[in-house]
Amino acid sequence: MRADVHRFSLTDPSDVSGLKEAIDRGAIDPKTIVAVIGKTHGNGLVNDYTRGYLTLCLSLLIGERTGETPEAVRERVPFVFSGGVEGVLSPHYTLFTVTADEAAGAGNALAIGVAFTPAMRPSDVGRQAQIDAVAAAVRQAVAEGSIDEVHFVQVKGPAFSLAEIINDQNAGRPPVTDNPGKLMSFGRAACALGVAKALGEIPADRAVEAAVLKDLSLHSSVASISAGVEVRTNEVIVMGMGRRWSGRLAIEHTTMTDALDVASLHAMVQRLGFPSAPQIADPGRLRAAFVKCEAQRDGLVRGRPHTMLNDGDINEQRHIRGAVGAIVASVLNDTGLFVSGGAEHQGPDGGGMVALIADRAGA
Amino acid sequence: MRADVHRFSLTDPSDVSGLKEAIDRGAIDPKTIVAVIGKTHGNGLVNDYTRGYLTLCLSLLIGERTGETPEAVRERVPFVFSGGVEGVLSPHYTLFTVTADEAAGAGNALAIGVAFTPAMRPSDVGRQAQIDAVAAAVRQAVAEGSIDEVHFVQVKGPAFSLAEIINDQNAGRPPVTDNPGKLMSFGRAACALGVAKALGEIPADRAVEAAVLKDLSLHSSVASISAGVEVRTNEVIVMGMGRRWSGRLAIEHTTMTDALDVASLHAMVQRLGFPSAPQIADPGRLRAAFVKCEAQRDGLVRGRPHTMLNDGDINEQRHIRGAVGAIVASVLNDTGLFVSGGAEHQGPDGGGMVALIADRAGA
Amino acid sequence: MRADVHRFSLTDPSDVSGLKEAIDRGAIDPKTIVAVIGKTHGNGLVNDYTRGYLTLCLSLLIGERTGETPEAVRERVPFVFSGGVEGVLSPHYTLFTVTADEAAGAGNALAIGVAFTPAMRPSDVGRQAQIDAVAAAVRQAVAEGSIDEVHFVQVKGPAFSLAEIINDQNAGRPPVTDNPGKLMSFGRAACALGVAKALGEIPADRAVEAAVLKDLSLHSSVASISAGVEVRTNEVIVMGMGRRWSGRLAIEHTTMTDALDVASLHAMVQRLGFPSAPQIADPGRLRAAFVKCEAQRDGLVRGRPHTMLNDGDINEQRHIRGAVGAIVASVLNDTGLFVSGGAEHQGPDGGGMVALIADRAGA
Amino acid sequence: MRADVHRFSLTDPSDVSGLKEAIDRGAIDPKTIVAVIGKTHGNGLVNDYTRGYLTLCLSLLIGERTGETPEAVRERVPFVFSGGVEGVLSPHYTLFTVTADEAAGAGNALAIGVAFTPAMRPSDVGRQAQIDAVAAAVRQAVAEGSIDEVHFVQVKGPAFSLAEIINDQNAGRPPVTDNPGKLMSFGRAACALGVAKALGEIPADRAVEAAVLKDLSLHSSVASISAGVEVRTNEVIVMGMGRRWSGRLAIEHTTMTDALDVASLHAMVQRLGFPSAPQIADPGRLRAAFVKCEAQRDGLVRGRPHTMLNDGDINEQRHIRGAVGAIVASVLNDTGLFVSGGAEHQGPDGGGMVALIADRAGA
Repeated sequence: MRADVHRFSLTDPSDVSGLKEAIDRGAIDPKTIVAVIGKTHGNGLVNDYTRGYLTLCLSLLIGERTGETPEAVRERVPFVFSGGVEGVLSPHYTLFTVTADEAAGAGNALAIGVAFTPAMRPSDVGRQAQIDAVAAAVRQAVAEGSIDEVHFVQVKGPAFSLAEIINDQNAGRPPVTDNPGKLMSFGRAACALGVAKALGEIPADRAVEAAVLKDLSLHSSVASISAGVEVRTNEVIVMGMGRRWSGRLAIEHTTMTDALDVASLHAMVQRLGFPSAPQIADPGRLRAAFVKCEAQRDGLVRGRPHTMLNDGDINEQRHIRGAVGAIVASVLNDTGLFVSGGAEHQGPDGGGMVALIADRAGA
Repeated sequence: MRADVHRFSLTDPSDVSGLKEAIDRGAIDPKTIVAVIGKTHGNGLVNDYTRGYLTLCLSLLIGERTGETPEAVRERVPFVFSGGVEGVLSPHYTLFTVTADEAAGAGNALAIGVAFTPAMRPSDVGRQAQIDAVAAAVRQAVAEGSIDEVHFVQVKGPAFSLAEIINDQNAGRPPVTDNPGKLMSFGRAACALGVAKALGEIPADRAVEAAVLKDLSLHSSVASISAGVEVRTNEVIVMGMGRRWSGRLAIEHTTMTDALDVASLHAMVQRLGFPSAPQIADPGRLRAAFVKCEAQRDGLVRGRPHTMLNDGDINEQRHIRGAVGAIVASVLNDTGLFVSGGAEHQGPDGGGMVALIADRAGA
Repeated sequence: MRADVHRFSLTDPSDVSGLKEAIDRGAIDPKTIVAVIGKTHGNGLVNDYTRGYLTLCLSLLIGERTGETPEAVRERVPFVFSGGVEGVLSPHYTLFTVTADEAAGAGNALAIGVAFTPAMRPSDVGRQAQIDAVAAAVRQAVAEGSIDEVHFVQVKGPAFSLAEIINDQNAGRPPVTDNPGKLMSFGRAACALGVAKALGEIPADRAVEAAVLKDLSLHSSVASISAGVEVRTNEVIVMGMGRRWSGRLAIEHTTMTDALDVASLHAMVQRLGFPSAPQIADPGRLRAAFVKCEAQRDGLVRGRPHTMLNDGDINEQRHIRGAVGAIVASVLNDTGLFVSGGAEHQGPDGGGMVALIADRAGA
Repeated sequence: MRADVHRFSLTDPSDVSGLKEAIDRGAIDPKTIVAVIGKTHGNGLVNDYTRGYLTLCLSLLIGERTGETPEAVRERVPFVFSGGVEGVLSPHYTLFTVTADEAAGAGNALAIGVAFTPAMRPSDVGRQAQIDAVAAAVRQAVAEGSIDEVHFVQVKGPAFSLAEIINDQNAGRPPVTDNPGKLMSFGRAACALGVAKALGEIPADRAVEAAVLKDLSLHSSVASISAGVEVRTNEVIVMGMGRRWSGRLAIEHTTMTDALDVASLHAMVQRLGFPSAPQIADPGRLRAAFVKCEAQRDGLVRGRPHTMLNDGDINEQRHIRGAVGAIVASVLNDTGLFVSGGAEHQGPDGGGMVALIADRAGA
């Protein structure tokens, strides 16, 4: 098997011209698409509808070319979009394809597995039900994807509008919070703890529901969680290295210990064979990058106060995505990055996970 | 003469406790303060009142200790505050003092000169009157400050609310625009061209009023311009190196050619004696940094689209300050930076000026 | 002929469940839909993609039920969506259907006509080309719709992102401005003047391109203009009373002279047969309401200053929609209103057009 | 005694020219000022510094004219400023003076009493300590002010930045929440319950700490609570009618049951002697108006969905202030209103308190 990565710029959230052209010239067989991850133009918060818009447009296009209904495409392919391209970040989507590769001998290469949990209700979010469902889906994706070394687990969990939360509450199922934005936070936290459980980052016998958003020392070093109103299940994409996989692509990851931790970025880049330099000179070898980040909860960055958590005009996630996204872009020489805020239990407080896929040729 | 630099964190825009404590323990003689530059908590746009609030609080404190009225302090000392501490940036103010230094032999060291233009009306902004007044003030500051090599010219020009603009218009003096935000942009542009004129960056005989916001190839490589409703004159602070000055401080500057130009940053840092590294290891030697930045007008950063100029929720200046501020912070290992948006004619389109003051001891 | 009006709430911009259910139970024949007007969840500015999202979802649904392609539906039916449901306003869409009504004798009743201009380029916006094209389309819609008395002309004109503007400029076609938000304003102004020309509100021989956004005394009292990146033509919907039409619906309109002009609202409501009262008691008779509004350009409302034009955090259009929308909602006892900002040449400075469709039964 | 009311427009938060002029021409004796209430230009959220800025400027001016220090003025006079003048609202401040009035026989007229609680820590906010302290201060103000019939109780409680909250937490005093914005909400709720306790709106023996932000059926019908980082005590101003007071001013209040409840507004206006009309014709008789409002928690206004609680771009309080402020302004024909969001326990869910002071002459 060979996993490939195709990244396209977005002029607006309905712009699927890049994929259309690639299918038309035979560069991508739409049946081989197994996952899509991207950054869209919205605010990345509850009232961001650009994620659903792009999901609809891509599933219409793929279905039109494969003969599937759009609904069938969405059940088969996880579409994980995060809104918010603050600062220098660039809206884009990245397709992952898996093809048989009989000519090439198998080696150690980029490996991908996907799985879905059952649909969740508002009252499931942030609770043991979501933790367990995500952990099971991660184990399934690792197994079915023959992944030997996990470097990145992307989960897109459900978010709910106020009306949906209240409907569930009125049906006798109280949520952990009736604040839609806060519920997104609970959901990301539960998903991250589910990933950590599945991968053994948290002891299997440790109860974790009580730790959700409380004990931030529990975290996964490879989880990246988004939430959005356009999904109802938890969509799980696991990436890593696998000996049954072939091709020139490799993936690495690291943990930024805080927002200014460029040393970890440089070490990761060098593990992928790039020479030591303040900025990558040949960004063409980069195929995709995934970043999680969060405003440090004590209100400081390296001892100086930041204002992200006091701001009533710009949401803290928009602040930190713009800042950490720019820092990573300055090292990678590339602004087409998946940078997602809300890193609850996805790395240490104030820091976050970074994963990078690169072409080893030329290294 | 010796110029010194004192930087204090701000918990809120009225927090002058740092200076008060420094005066009380004799570390700063308030009579020696010649300029104050800082970043405050507001949005950095027309309706940002945090600049004026800090100006009032500092002038009250300084006046109380020197015996001057607050008004006299403000006429003597330029207070240049820029609002907007997006992302990891940290609110702070930096005081510049000049003292006699007879013990030390004069050498080549940080030199400072200040000057003020007459008060401007809304209808003067963005026009030849402002260009000429600023050019004259720059020449005066260079001469009086005995500055041999100019590295940084900070100007704070006036901004006006809609009511003030309309009053002036009704008095028969039409402004270049009646949009308050746009008028700030015209003013910054005119000030930058005034600086460029004074320093010979634009030929003395070249008419420039017609170039304001039109011909962006005309620019100053050392100008940093802010505008705010709390000033009526253009306040000019020139910094550079001077042979008649003593002390361990030195200043350098560079031009970022675009938002991701970290190479220029590293070259500047090394000119100040820091070893080559992705991030400065001993930020304690840094005394102040000044950054101008702007969203690239063709909508691209290194070929990929950005969304800063299409955004109706977050002003383009807030986007670019957060991004470029974070990149510079990641190199300097310091978030207490003066990062100001609106770099019209203050560096190339999409780029901007950066200046850095450091202690040479330990280099 | 009989015109009917069907209003549906939107839980999110892809929620077409209301129409689907109405088609399924036979209440609406999708072939009879001639226009859709609505308010969606976005910011109503350049980067609002909720308008396009709903357009896609509705055209998919209608096409599925009529056998048309979604593209064919969009060419036949104008979809006019305005983003921004600030304050108490409620997201919704209103469908207009036209059916043969042979049983009923014709009377004087709500009449509708629609027309489209050719596609526009960024460089056409705000210019004579757009004014003339819109005027011709209005005349066509009035004639084909047999409208005797025009009360409301809704135009949705094109908006363009920065990239599209620059592409057109680079092709040798300079726009009136390269600021995307400002270009929306120019476009709305040109459309309004086109309406005024077609209806004789401006003398036919008067040149008007020079008046765009300059001479605001020229305006239409029935025009309501929106702009959005999701359309390329100008879509024109004319409503009024026609003797060849039947049914119980009637339309009236008025001009609010400023944001607090409730007297005009009450007079209009009474012309539709509602009793005099501070608030309509039986809002069920209301079928649709259309409101244009704008922040008064001298910065005052009835002599006291407002801050809408100085605000860097919330766009002026969001302020005024929230305010005027709430006032109209408080009189009509209904929050499902089409309230649109940017009333350039669509009523006097600071005021705007209001139109109301009501069922005369019960009056 | 006679209470008088003086309202001044604000061009910016440091604009105290109105009061200065009034003192200079003898219209106001600064020693008689007992309270100041106003609306400033900020966002009304945690990072709103315009409240503190105006407080400083007014206390400097008053102190300069009375011979008091600014600190002494602030200890004597409660300055209650709420940020956020969305939509048509106009920034202003209203001074309340109390003078001996021996000529006039005492009658039933506007009466004012003020009191302060001790300073609070972050960990006191939202708890019994704050409830009890506020209740005691209300009782004191009623007694010292000889108020027979209470119509309005304004409390300004403390808010804290993240850094202050964390400092208190680290000192062993955990807050009810470490989210600064949420803590403001807890504080307003506790203050409102304290008012209700003091006035007998809640049975004296009922424990209320557990009801804070939980049981919204407990509320005061006359409380209006603001919170801001610029105060440390709870400042209490009680207004009502008193037989020992003289003058032409009277106060009334009502409860809006939801955002569109104009019927209650009209009834209140008529109780003050204004004729029945959709809009007051002679707004000159109005001296001050106070409004509390809040987005309805079930996401509906009169059965239709609103979007205020799902919005990541504009805070819910800014939405509802703009909407309800405009509605009240349209009835009162006046935009210089004190409209404050965050009406926790200050009226029914989705509604809020309105109080009005008018001159009875001419009624």
